[in-house]
Amino acid sequence: MRYENNGVRDLSIAYIGGGSRGWAWTFMTDLAMDGQLGGTISLYDIDREAAEHNRVIGNALTARKDTVGKWNYKTADSLKEALTGADFVVISILPGTFEEMRSDVHAPEKFGIYQSVGDTVGPGGFLRAMRTIPMYVEIARAIRENSPNAWVINYTNPMSVCVRTLYTVFPQIKAFGCCHEVFGTQKLLAAMLKDQKGIENATRQEIDISVTGINHFTWITKASCRGMDLFPLYRNFAKKHYETGFCENTDSNWMNDSFACAHRVKFDLFLRHGLIAAAGDRHLAEFLPSWYYLKDPETVRQWMFGLTTVDYRIQDLHKRLARSKRLLSGEEQFELKPSGEEGILLIKALLGLKDKISNVNLPNRGQVANLPLGTVVETNARFSRDSIAPVFSGSLPNDVLGLVMRHAVNQAGTVEAGLRKDRDFAFRVFQNDPRIALSVNDARQLFDLMVENTQKYLNWD
Amino acid sequence: MRYENNGVRDLSIAYIGGGSRGWAWTFMTDLAMDGQLGGTISLYDIDREAAEHNRVIGNALTARKDTVGKWNYKTADSLKEALTGADFVVISILPGTFEEMRSDVHAPEKFGIYQSVGDTVGPGGFLRAMRTIPMYVEIARAIRENSPNAWVINYTNPMSVCVRTLYTVFPQIKAFGCCHEVFGTQKLLAAMLKDQKGIENATRQEIDISVTGINHFTWITKASCRGMDLFPLYRNFAKKHYETGFCENTDSNWMNDSFACAHRVKFDLFLRHGLIAAAGDRHLAEFLPSWYYLKDPETVRQWMFGLTTVDYRIQDLHKRLARSKRLLSGEEQFELKPSGEEGILLIKALLGLKDKISNVNLPNRGQVANLPLGTVVETNARFSRDSIAPVFSGSLPNDVLGLVMRHAVNQAGTVEAGLRKDRDFAFRVFQNDPRIALSVNDARQLFDLMVENTQKYLNWD
Amino acid sequence: MRYENNGVRDLSIAYIGGGSRGWAWTFMTDLAMDGQLGGTISLYDIDREAAEHNRVIGNALTARKDTVGKWNYKTADSLKEALTGADFVVISILPGTFEEMRSDVHAPEKFGIYQSVGDTVGPGGFLRAMRTIPMYVEIARAIRENSPNAWVINYTNPMSVCVRTLYTVFPQIKAFGCCHEVFGTQKLLAAMLKDQKGIENATRQEIDISVTGINHFTWITKASCRGMDLFPLYRNFAKKHYETGFCENTDSNWMNDSFACAHRVKFDLFLRHGLIAAAGDRHLAEFLPSWYYLKDPETVRQWMFGLTTVDYRIQDLHKRLARSKRLLSGEEQFELKPSGEEGILLIKALLGLKDKISNVNLPNRGQVANLPLGTVVETNARFSRDSIAPVFSGSLPNDVLGLVMRHAVNQAGTVEAGLRKDRDFAFRVFQNDPRIALSVNDARQLFDLMVENTQKYLNWD
Amino acid sequence: MRYENNGVRDLSIAYIGGGSRGWAWTFMTDLAMDGQLGGTISLYDIDREAAEHNRVIGNALTARKDTVGKWNYKTADSLKEALTGADFVVISILPGTFEEMRSDVHAPEKFGIYQSVGDTVGPGGFLRAMRTIPMYVEIARAIRENSPNAWVINYTNPMSVCVRTLYTVFPQIKAFGCCHEVFGTQKLLAAMLKDQKGIENATRQEIDISVTGINHFTWITKASCRGMDLFPLYRNFAKKHYETGFCENTDSNWMNDSFACAHRVKFDLFLRHGLIAAAGDRHLAEFLPSWYYLKDPETVRQWMFGLTTVDYRIQDLHKRLARSKRLLSGEEQFELKPSGEEGILLIKALLGLKDKISNVNLPNRGQVANLPLGTVVETNARFSRDSIAPVFSGSLPNDVLGLVMRHAVNQAGTVEAGLRKDRDFAFRVFQNDPRIALSVNDARQLFDLMVENTQKYLNWD
Repeated sequence: MRYENNGVRDLSIAYIGGGSRGWAWTFMTDLAMDGQLGGTISLYDIDREAAEHNRVIGNALTARKDTVGKWNYKTADSLKEALTGADFVVISILPGTFEEMRSDVHAPEKFGIYQSVGDTVGPGGFLRAMRTIPMYVEIARAIRENSPNAWVINYTNPMSVCVRTLYTVFPQIKAFGCCHEVFGTQKLLAAMLKDQKGIENATRQEIDISVTGINHFTWITKASCRGMDLFPLYRNFAKKHYETGFCENTDSNWMNDSFACAHRVKFDLFLRHGLIAAAGDRHLAEFLPSWYYLKDPETVRQWMFGLTTVDYRIQDLHKRLARSKRLLSGEEQFELKPSGEEGILLIKALLGLKDKISNVNLPNRGQVANLPLGTVVETNARFSRDSIAPVFSGSLPNDVLGLVMRHAVNQAGTVEAGLRKDRDFAFRVFQNDPRIALSVNDARQLFDLMVENTQKYLNWD
Repeated sequence: MRYENNGVRDLSIAYIGGGSRGWAWTFMTDLAMDGQLGGTISLYDIDREAAEHNRVIGNALTARKDTVGKWNYKTADSLKEALTGADFVVISILPGTFEEMRSDVHAPEKFGIYQSVGDTVGPGGFLRAMRTIPMYVEIARAIRENSPNAWVINYTNPMSVCVRTLYTVFPQIKAFGCCHEVFGTQKLLAAMLKDQKGIENATRQEIDISVTGINHFTWITKASCRGMDLFPLYRNFAKKHYETGFCENTDSNWMNDSFACAHRVKFDLFLRHGLIAAAGDRHLAEFLPSWYYLKDPETVRQWMFGLTTVDYRIQDLHKRLARSKRLLSGEEQFELKPSGEEGILLIKALLGLKDKISNVNLPNRGQVANLPLGTVVETNARFSRDSIAPVFSGSLPNDVLGLVMRHAVNQAGTVEAGLRKDRDFAFRVFQNDPRIALSVNDARQLFDLMVENTQKYLNWD
Repeated sequence: MRYENNGVRDLSIAYIGGGSRGWAWTFMTDLAMDGQLGGTISLYDIDREAAEHNRVIGNALTARKDTVGKWNYKTADSLKEALTGADFVVISILPGTFEEMRSDVHAPEKFGIYQSVGDTVGPGGFLRAMRTIPMYVEIARAIRENSPNAWVINYTNPMSVCVRTLYTVFPQIKAFGCCHEVFGTQKLLAAMLKDQKGIENATRQEIDISVTGINHFTWITKASCRGMDLFPLYRNFAKKHYETGFCENTDSNWMNDSFACAHRVKFDLFLRHGLIAAAGDRHLAEFLPSWYYLKDPETVRQWMFGLTTVDYRIQDLHKRLARSKRLLSGEEQFELKPSGEEGILLIKALLGLKDKISNVNLPNRGQVANLPLGTVVETNARFSRDSIAPVFSGSLPNDVLGLVMRHAVNQAGTVEAGLRKDRDFAFRVFQNDPRIALSVNDARQLFDLMVENTQKYLNWD
Repeated sequence: MRYENNGVRDLSIAYIGGGSRGWAWTFMTDLAMDGQLGGTISLYDIDREAAEHNRVIGNALTARKDTVGKWNYKTADSLKEALTGADFVVISILPGTFEEMRSDVHAPEKFGIYQSVGDTVGPGGFLRAMRTIPMYVEIARAIRENSPNAWVINYTNPMSVCVRTLYTVFPQIKAFGCCHEVFGTQKLLAAMLKDQKGIENATRQEIDISVTGINHFTWITKASCRGMDLFPLYRNFAKKHYETGFCENTDSNWMNDSFACAHRVKFDLFLRHGLIAAAGDRHLAEFLPSWYYLKDPETVRQWMFGLTTVDYRIQDLHKRLARSKRLLSGEEQFELKPSGEEGILLIKALLGLKDKISNVNLPNRGQVANLPLGTVVETNARFSRDSIAPVFSGSLPNDVLGLVMRHAVNQAGTVEAGLRKDRDFAFRVFQNDPRIALSVNDARQLFDLMVENTQKYLNWD
């Protein structure tokens, strides 16, 4: 790569999971709108054809007159080919098929365990981790061999487990995990300013926050905007909308949209603990025992968030496949609208073009003072030229620590289980998840069933 | 005090809770049988009459020809009087009356929560802690003022919370907590040697163990006797007796005795986690969610341990009161039989008479590598002249850490709640206990009821 | 205080050492040029008259038409009066008179120890610390009593020792230490860009750095500007100017100016260790053994920096006293020119007006991974509304750690000595300073002499 | 191996450096006197003939009627052969020849640096480390491959560096370092009891101590015997003999014996710091700057310890070679007298035959609270069946920490330098040694000279 006119040319980016019909398109579009960067993107995917399609779609974007970020899209036949010479590596893969995901999300329902996402913690998150870890072992080794100095951006879930696996296999890796869940809560706080103070024009970026915790179970310990402390306002806001929920800031309604929520879980957690939980309610609920928010579908309805079904995800994929076809044929074009994601900004910060503070997932070196060192935690960090420096976020209060710590411990156990491939040990970690409030026999039945369902990705005895 | 003929004379011991009709008698008897020590014991108790009775009983022991340890028993009118000049302080108090204990143990039953002891963790342990902490604040301050260099031995439960409170209030205190639960497991291992290898004469003291964890939820990570690794033997032993339990080593049967057990919980934990849990099953069960061993009385019966009722404890007290009367009148005398407790041995080690390794409760300075610093943990320590040095016990495996860590975090929260006296914060910590698997409304009802029942010891708003 | 029109009014600032004729004037002038802030400044000084003069000078500034920051200056008769109600506290005091400073700087010369500043480490820094610590104990207690929630900004040297004393006495204090030494090195890097690349317009603020170490012995581990890595450039730069020194960026020449230097020490340290030392050479030299740069005046001349004499300081004070007179009478007015100091910017960041990254002195909570926790270290931190969050700076390389660690250990010992007032212990710490390469007898003679000279501020036995 | 009659048979011990004519003979003799152990010892040495001689000598010992420990001595042609199947590994090698040692010890004299041993720290210790580290890398790898579960006992100097290298290369290694220097100080304390209290029969084993620090620079922080605190006695003792030295307990006089001393250094350190330094004065002196005890030969004489010359060592070797010849021919036999070394006792403890507390060198996991984790430190540890558990020794006081910490940091740097083989980095670490009080040019000259002298063992560029 080379610096030129306050920009960087000839960048080399490897995109693992480059056939993606979600993140990849967002990323391509954001890049196309940014004139400071340019170079080559090497798409690697085990679905070779999907990567090939994205190559065509990407180069079409470059060919458009109204794009300023010009990239040359290629496909790669191997991890090695994709990674060699890379300055940045993006990882955004889908571990397994909808078949395995169906087991992750729905198999536990037979045992009375309902999941709103099933990709982070709980029985679904655990099994997904078991499938994902061996893939990440392979990726980490390939990076160590082929691009040890590249910056590696992970988008895959379970986020904490993926990032921890990378660091376990290759401790010198320059990897971090990006997630936009916190942004949603910043938007909620901006909406709150309108609701509480009539301030219409506050942007997400103006909501200054201190974030701490672990991915999808992050907590805002300080929030301000234009010098105002937002905590007293949020207390009123949470009380006002506690019963009915707050839906106004969302683009869509929680009843119709698997990804929406009315923030009742968030309000409840705030009224109990005094901190602002910073993720969608669907994610938050999964970190807590079933008797909190996920007891049964009726309870979930009362808390006003949706259970994402795999059927929904399949439907959604069909839509995206159809769209891919249209994009490939030129029948449709991407709209050049900023996604609101910060990936490109972080890359630019790492290139030294403009430093940035953002929330990020990294191994704990003390940025969360009372979680174990090595736990992948989510806090603010400062991104600058070839550097990500975590910003100290202090200690979690003891009551919230009680909720978060068990997931920190399980994170370590989950990665160990995925690496060891010891079925009994894996079961013991599985059983420590707060959602698995089952007798040991029931827990084992569920575990064995789910292992069976995802067996071909595990190759366990 | 002065050293003389390989012994120490003119020792001064303050006994807080000196009216005790259990520990105090054991302690007095052990002292009476040991000729190396002598001096004065100052008995302090809020039940002045009980202390007075023990003074008479103690001095009668000194007057006996067949005792070699001669002590002068006094009573003290205040903590200050008892502590001034003390070389050692023993604390063994009963926080509250049976009325409060009845609430601790039985109030949660209305919400389906059964407790086998109710004095350590769970709802009963938490409320007992709330009553106890203010007393320990007062004791710690009195020690800081009157005997800052004395060694302080705690026997009161909840052990970890008591010791942590002492160190929080007076960080330079030389305090430690003694508990005999681990000895019971050593005895079980000795009995196992007979069962498995036909070795009849192995003593508890020969069972060399490495202990780690927190009081009443300790784990043996290594055990040997005469060069033999006991873990393979214990695996066979646990399997052999898993279904039927093992009762032979106990003096009494679990069906008739509130304190006995058949070790099925211990065997179950071993078969799952590969470590030997080292406490009575009644204690162990309370650290785990209800669906493990304490779901309901029927489940408890299957696991073959008893629920200690408060009625039992009241009956037991009546027996001890009657015995006190007989001892006072001279109608009965203590039998001079070693108790098996190590308190006297530890005092002698601290006096430099003979060093000793024993398990002890102390703030974590790294002796348990993966529990938070400051957590009161139970590990081996070396006792020598004016010194207790913890022995490094390593890290708990991640699966067991998942069980122990939440109690470590709750320990910190419990002490904070007891010191802050903030009802809402206290509730949040209460709710994090793994036994309290209730909806927030039910949990709050239970909490408020139990606070009400013990209100006069709390003086909360 | 209240927020209004994107600014804050009715702020209350306590200025301890408010009679200062240096920092105070800079601070007043910077405030006068900033329209976002306003309120009251309470000047406290043991030299009551000096504070009174600054009150008049300050209010004259407020009365000027060309100032936009309007402040009401008062004097306070006691620490308590100054602190009560303060939102911010500034501490900038001179511990002792020139008489003591003369001893600090010059007494060691008899033993062949030459000092270029004598206020940080070495014999002079140590004795100055002994005088200063009791004053800071008093200040910390007064803050704890009267303004525990105020942000406290320290400018006094020895910086690390002052800040550490504040935190030792009142652990919850919100104090930090500000020092501009690092800015000088940023300016040098900007000048280097001209020298090496012909870039004329790079500003100090554009030089992005990662700072680590301890005050006056800080190290830049990463530096960039506009995407360029500055380290390769600095290597060439240091080699090019190694022999002759580099003087062009300084306002004055090292030969005529006690505060100037030709950066030869900095270049030498870079060529040896590969990191950019980030303070004036006069300060850096004092952290290293005498055989490096301060062997004798001739050696100092070869390294091209000046030994600040106390005579120079006295002359300088006379100039400032004369200027004070002119300011008081109105004969002279402050020029409204930004000082380049960041104090006001940091205050505004803490008020939530605009967040800022800057280097700052704080107790180590992991921001320097391999210095002991609690050491007052200097690293970047993020300043935002009511928050200073250290930014992680990683580990010092082992060779540089060897240079820095001994000062970290001595810092702890120095504060302990100042608090304990134990002459023998103090001597043992004194003797550990790398500049004191004397036989124990000589070291003790020097120590006793210096203690004698500053005795009235110590009240030691 | 197998347990039998309270002993262990068929043990397999690998002895690396098995041609040794010092340690090996001591070890063989101790084993021959102990009837609880038996098995095979595999001698490996790059001097094949020396190993062969020891094989013959060892088997002759086994053949004697008056020996009870019967061992079969073999030689091995490779590390792999020696290690395969080993239960224990003993490492006691001489890195380099007397030629290199002559450079280590005497080359620095040209620069005014006198060394009393030259094998631990200072210029000699550093160069010796550079030669030794590559050998230990090879050994660690061989152990990882061939006997990963064996216990590894190191006797080679520089002790800390050797042990740290083993753990750096193979973190799971079960290695520890044994050194008898501390025993000498225990003997001194026993002699003191005679001198001060007329107690004649106190044995070394009765002197109970708490040890902390790093090898050859260890400190006793508590010492007692039969309940007595030895510190007040030692204060009187040190004062009494400060000027004249104390020679009575040594077998030989410091004037005639390179290894003897009169303890004046020890007394001086005690009178300054209040802790008992626990190594021979020759070793202690090397950890301190030259102006303490090693300024020049005259100063050394005043402090009453000897400079061990290489000529002395060569003479000594000739004696041992002659003795080897006599032993080989049967002309001479070992006297069956206990050596006082604890190696055999530690092996028996690790076999579970009898637990033991002893001082040992291990990576710091918190046993010295204020030295960096990972530093190889010397403290007490408890040896029991298949376990070495460090005993916590607390924090060093800040003044002593100032002396020890710089060696802890240099230890890390030294191992890094030995692994990296980067000449410039190595020089930077070399220069941080407190004995190297030279201008950078002189230091570099000395360094380059010494590297040249030992070049064939380094293979540096």
